[in-house]
Amino acid sequence: MLEIDLIRHVKVKGKPALYGCTDVTPNMVENARLLERLVSQQQTNKAYHSIVCSPLKRCQLLAKEFSARCNLPLEISLDLHEMNFGCFDGVAFDDLYFNETSAKTEQYGEIETELCWSQLEAFLQTPADIVLPDAEALSDFYHRVKNAWHRLIEQQVIVLSQQRELHTPRRILVVVHGGVIRMILAHILQLDWQKSSWHQKLKIGHGSMSRIVISQPYQDDQLNQQVTSIAMPFLEDL
Amino acid sequence: MLEIDLIRHVKVKGKPALYGCTDVTPNMVENARLLERLVSQQQTNKAYHSIVCSPLKRCQLLAKEFSARCNLPLEISLDLHEMNFGCFDGVAFDDLYFNETSAKTEQYGEIETELCWSQLEAFLQTPADIVLPDAEALSDFYHRVKNAWHRLIEQQVIVLSQQRELHTPRRILVVVHGGVIRMILAHILQLDWQKSSWHQKLKIGHGSMSRIVISQPYQDDQLNQQVTSIAMPFLEDL
Repeated sequence: MLEIDLIRHVKVKGKPALYGCTDVTPNMVENARLLERLVSQQQTNKAYHSIVCSPLKRCQLLAKEFSARCNLPLEISLDLHEMNFGCFDGVAFDDLYFNETSAKTEQYGEIETELCWSQLEAFLQTPADIVLPDAEALSDFYHRVKNAWHRLIEQQVIVLSQQRELHTPRRILVVVHGGVIRMILAHILQLDWQKSSWHQKLKIGHGSMSRIVISQPYQDDQLNQQVTSIAMPFLEDL
Repeated sequence: MLEIDLIRHVKVKGKPALYGCTDVTPNMVENARLLERLVSQQQTNKAYHSIVCSPLKRCQLLAKEFSARCNLPLEISLDLHEMNFGCFDGVAFDDLYFNETSAKTEQYGEIETELCWSQLEAFLQTPADIVLPDAEALSDFYHRVKNAWHRLIEQQVIVLSQQRELHTPRRILVVVHGGVIRMILAHILQLDWQKSSWHQKLKIGHGSMSRIVISQPYQDDQLNQQVTSIAMPFLEDL
């Protein structure tokens, strides 16, 4: 049996904004608290055997320190980074214009359009229908994450098959982003990842944990994946 | 703000079976553990203000004892009982026939059909397409639960509006069944509750807790409901 915990990074430093591929630093106090919690869990029967993480700092810093402290193998999975929000990525909400009229500024005789709140709002309402300028399409994001997830599982099933003690579940920690967790869950639950309610109505909190259990048969499509918990608070009491 | 915790009852006494409207007794040891955990939580800032429960014993016993121990108002919501599985409800899986041929027995010259595993299996594969004999249709179950949920919220919003300290979140515990929790979640997340994967791939563990947060505006359809956790283990460590 494989047990995979998907943990979302802690809050990041910086003004409120849509942080996708922008490589922001995590809040170091919270990151340290999360690390201590993970390290202390290693002393229990819920110890992890391996770590996988997104290449972005807000995930990688935690994963690297945890790997070093507990001597655990770490893999950085390049395709597990957050969605790329293009022109809007990392731009503080405070710096957006409120309507299109005020956002159009004339410079050197050409109309230059500044970033508008209404454009972002439209994307948040119907994320599958709108692609922000220079951004990744939601469908590309879904397929990237889905493929990375398949590779991760395939790899872990191979390791599991080489394991001597077949009755011990193998536990993996995956340190990733809110959007990535939501897409993995939608894939396993076979839900419509295009529905905006899935993105708006389900909150994946910072530092929260979602658990996937994978049991035999392990062959190809027949992998029996089940979601047993979503977004459990891991830093506070329930 | 309203915070509503949906807790599933503990394991029940009895052989493995589909327990819907059959009024089985909960495992008393686990029920007592869950009660102690809830009572001790009342001493924290996560104390509940009110309890709502299904009329079935496996939920009501816990809710009544918790209400008495902590002096909390309790409402038994008749429409929050589990789905009615008709002829199959409460019948041990061991007592089902494995194929239709062996299930047909001739008695007094008439062919009498016994309960078949294949019939149950077909329902579990496509629960929205098949109605088991004498059972509730999945769509009726969904609408019953959805309406009960609406009434519950409406009532709580009224209580909240009469509350003096507006800034304290009002916390409600709802003791119900796995199927009921899954339907409430599907309703809030606006998911397709007819999809079998929603019923098969998401496990709502015994004694697990799922949390809904409802924030202003409180008017009618505009109620801002968000799911913040699904099926957190409440009796064990994460």
